[in-house]
Amino acid sequence: MINVRVVAFILGVLLILEGAFMFLAAPVSIVHGDNDALYILLSSLATALAGFLLWISFRNCNKNIGKREGYLIVSLGWVLFSFFGSIPFLITGAIPSYTDAFFETISGFTTTGASVLNDIESLSHGLLFWRSMTQWLGGMGIIVLSLVILPILGIGGMQLFIAEVPGPTPDKLHPRIKETAKRLWGVYFIITSLEVILLLFGKDMTLFDAVCHSFTTLATGGYSTKQMSIAFYSSPYVHYVIAFFMMIAGTNFALTYFIMHFKFKNLWRNEEFRAFLSFIGIFTLGITIILIFTVPEQSIEKSFRNSLFQVVSIITTTGYTTADYLSWMPSAIILLLILMFFGGSAGSTGGSIKIVRIVLLLKNGLIELKRLIHPNAIVPVRLNREAVKPEIITNVLAFISGYLLITVIGVIVVSFMGYDLETSMGSVAATLGNIGPGIGDVGPAFNYSHFNDITKWFLSFLMLVGRLELFTVLVLFTPTFWKK
Amino acid sequence: MINVRVVAFILGVLLILEGAFMFLAAPVSIVHGDNDALYILLSSLATALAGFLLWISFRNCNKNIGKREGYLIVSLGWVLFSFFGSIPFLITGAIPSYTDAFFETISGFTTTGASVLNDIESLSHGLLFWRSMTQWLGGMGIIVLSLVILPILGIGGMQLFIAEVPGPTPDKLHPRIKETAKRLWGVYFIITSLEVILLLFGKDMTLFDAVCHSFTTLATGGYSTKQMSIAFYSSPYVHYVIAFFMMIAGTNFALTYFIMHFKFKNLWRNEEFRAFLSFIGIFTLGITIILIFTVPEQSIEKSFRNSLFQVVSIITTTGYTTADYLSWMPSAIILLLILMFFGGSAGSTGGSIKIVRIVLLLKNGLIELKRLIHPNAIVPVRLNREAVKPEIITNVLAFISGYLLITVIGVIVVSFMGYDLETSMGSVAATLGNIGPGIGDVGPAFNYSHFNDITKWFLSFLMLVGRLELFTVLVLFTPTFWKK
Repeated sequence: MINVRVVAFILGVLLILEGAFMFLAAPVSIVHGDNDALYILLSSLATALAGFLLWISFRNCNKNIGKREGYLIVSLGWVLFSFFGSIPFLITGAIPSYTDAFFETISGFTTTGASVLNDIESLSHGLLFWRSMTQWLGGMGIIVLSLVILPILGIGGMQLFIAEVPGPTPDKLHPRIKETAKRLWGVYFIITSLEVILLLFGKDMTLFDAVCHSFTTLATGGYSTKQMSIAFYSSPYVHYVIAFFMMIAGTNFALTYFIMHFKFKNLWRNEEFRAFLSFIGIFTLGITIILIFTVPEQSIEKSFRNSLFQVVSIITTTGYTTADYLSWMPSAIILLLILMFFGGSAGSTGGSIKIVRIVLLLKNGLIELKRLIHPNAIVPVRLNREAVKPEIITNVLAFISGYLLITVIGVIVVSFMGYDLETSMGSVAATLGNIGPGIGDVGPAFNYSHFNDITKWFLSFLMLVGRLELFTVLVLFTPTFWKK
Repeated sequence: MINVRVVAFILGVLLILEGAFMFLAAPVSIVHGDNDALYILLSSLATALAGFLLWISFRNCNKNIGKREGYLIVSLGWVLFSFFGSIPFLITGAIPSYTDAFFETISGFTTTGASVLNDIESLSHGLLFWRSMTQWLGGMGIIVLSLVILPILGIGGMQLFIAEVPGPTPDKLHPRIKETAKRLWGVYFIITSLEVILLLFGKDMTLFDAVCHSFTTLATGGYSTKQMSIAFYSSPYVHYVIAFFMMIAGTNFALTYFIMHFKFKNLWRNEEFRAFLSFIGIFTLGITIILIFTVPEQSIEKSFRNSLFQVVSIITTTGYTTADYLSWMPSAIILLLILMFFGGSAGSTGGSIKIVRIVLLLKNGLIELKRLIHPNAIVPVRLNREAVKPEIITNVLAFISGYLLITVIGVIVVSFMGYDLETSMGSVAATLGNIGPGIGDVGPAFNYSHFNDITKWFLSFLMLVGRLELFTVLVLFTPTFWKK
């Protein structure tokens, strides 16, 4: 029997928190002289009230949380947050269609950054703040999910990273979440503040824009307060600062925690981090060379910067843009399309397949070749010098195959709605990978507003599935989950 | 130490056989009054002579064949066959460029069917016969390779099918090859003859065309004697007959052997076969519906026939066409593009990933979901009611990932040559999968002649890698292979 009551209880607590965070958007609107503070306040109260009702009804429930309850809380949590989070957009009339408001909000909480807005600057400061904050909160959720909860649930090889997590390693879910979450959120908060300060130094951004962009950088979300995204800011300083923080956001937060405690050993020893940097280096170099040859009128610095920014933005699944990369050569576009399947490091806010899985995939491939010649030799795949259990390799390979399978099914579905190959591929890769802009008609110069409603709901579902490491959501659709 | 001498000896024997088969093209030219019989004869003699020299030099060698020798013979065999097989095209002047002649020949022996010819009908009957025969011989090689040699070498889960192969199951490579090969080739020959007879019944084809097309159907090769491919023949009868034989050619030849011995039990029990039929059914239905709605002026029968033919042609990796599918809706094109990664059954002449691997991928994915809820329960993946060993699952998943990885690298390489996304994807999917026509500029209305030489050599390499189940070729590039 699934303990539905504790699920409802915890969702209640989470909704109260969401209401509290939403509340913060009201003063932002007031300070900037927008006239929608009351609406935001009402939305916040409605959210908190819904949470309170759940909390009060189930507060005496049995507090045992097993795996099934864990899966339910996580999946429903993201959906409920998006449901209530969309209220401010709806009741202010900023996004009149419910489908659109939900799409924009789940795109926030899943840190995707795919938008349906054709005029972002027309939104009030309070709504823009809330929109950025959905991503920041989604990022907080993901860090705890990927570093604390998923390793325990054993999804897609995530148990690999248990050893890397700071804090105690008890068997019970509860104390672990509390202690570890606090430490990781401390890191998250400090780095966000640091980015705000550095962005303000550039004098190109207001405090408001600096805060909003820092929220969405750390979450690798990519929502900007400008329709032009980061291309709005001409200063190279801003581009480099944001690129740097996207790279931090795409790094395992447990690693970052160690760095902040001056334990650099963990950093160099970490193969995922080295691979992450290497991929960025190789792809940046490749695209820089293409740009130097094909856009000779542009300075080499700018070619490098545009290449670096777009590569980092896509590999970390942030989705900010400083250039319309669809105007580049097909080879450069293809490199970016491939990067959409890489994703950030495990334990970061980045989405998609994740670097460590790509690394294990490549290493296992090489070892398969060795096994062909010495079939009886036992050659384990090693990560950070330690042998990886075969089950984890199967797990990782199943994850990657599952990811690609869902991509393929997604492309079929979207193309059946009447969209072309590139748009279908681009929108599926960019939503399942939680990136935002893709290729085709969802490139940097476009957005998701032109899709029909069914497609928008479908892509929302893909964002959720991608964000929650596929199986967390898919398992809810198996009969086994609900049995007994 | 690798026994290079026995490799040379066997290659010698194989070359003598190639020379003998090539010889058969000379009388075909003479009968049809073409004036290039002498050139074909000379090519045939040169090939046989080269083989004879190898044979005579190494006939006293140590005849021990281990795994490494096996890999070398297979890979070098295909390359050498293509090298000598291209001589007739070159010395008759039919294909003046060496790159083109090699491309056309390796595309034959790998049963790919990607052509560089802009006017196929201008070739003499002897050359067309030889061109079709390269595919037929390639198909013979593949049947033995996939049903007899690869299971012993243990590549990509091929050991699964050992039990299905008729004939004795000794530990030694040699007697097994001889006995089993004879039986399988018997089946291959009988079915080819059957197709010739049925095609002649249609009265739409000459004996020459019927033989050539039967050669390339059974090999799932797809070389036609007509520039328009099967679209040249307007008779639905021809289309259905060829579609039927493509389906047989895409079925495990061991299964077909059982059918011919009236052991139908093996057929219904075989999950790969059922999945093969199901995939054909689902994709045909999907595309038929699209065609009925988007090409309403066409009869339903024709929509169904065009859908069925193209689906069967691509899933079996044959590559014949009766319609320019690139003029269809994007969703139909996407379905065909996806099919390019399915391939025929293992143990058939079809290329690409193969149905059984797709089936295991899907089953393992479902079981991963179950494992999430019951992590300690041992739930094996089952195929044909028997549990599949975890090593084989890892093997299969590694194969699929490797296949996709090579596809990705291939697309990058081709796009760097300056080709667009669809052409890069289409040409790589269609050569690695041994299909022939793809999407973009290698669609049914085009061919491969417009690529530059480097790309042609690269695509030739992909055909070889795809045809030999990836690892057979790639292993030769590892240091481990050459060590000690």
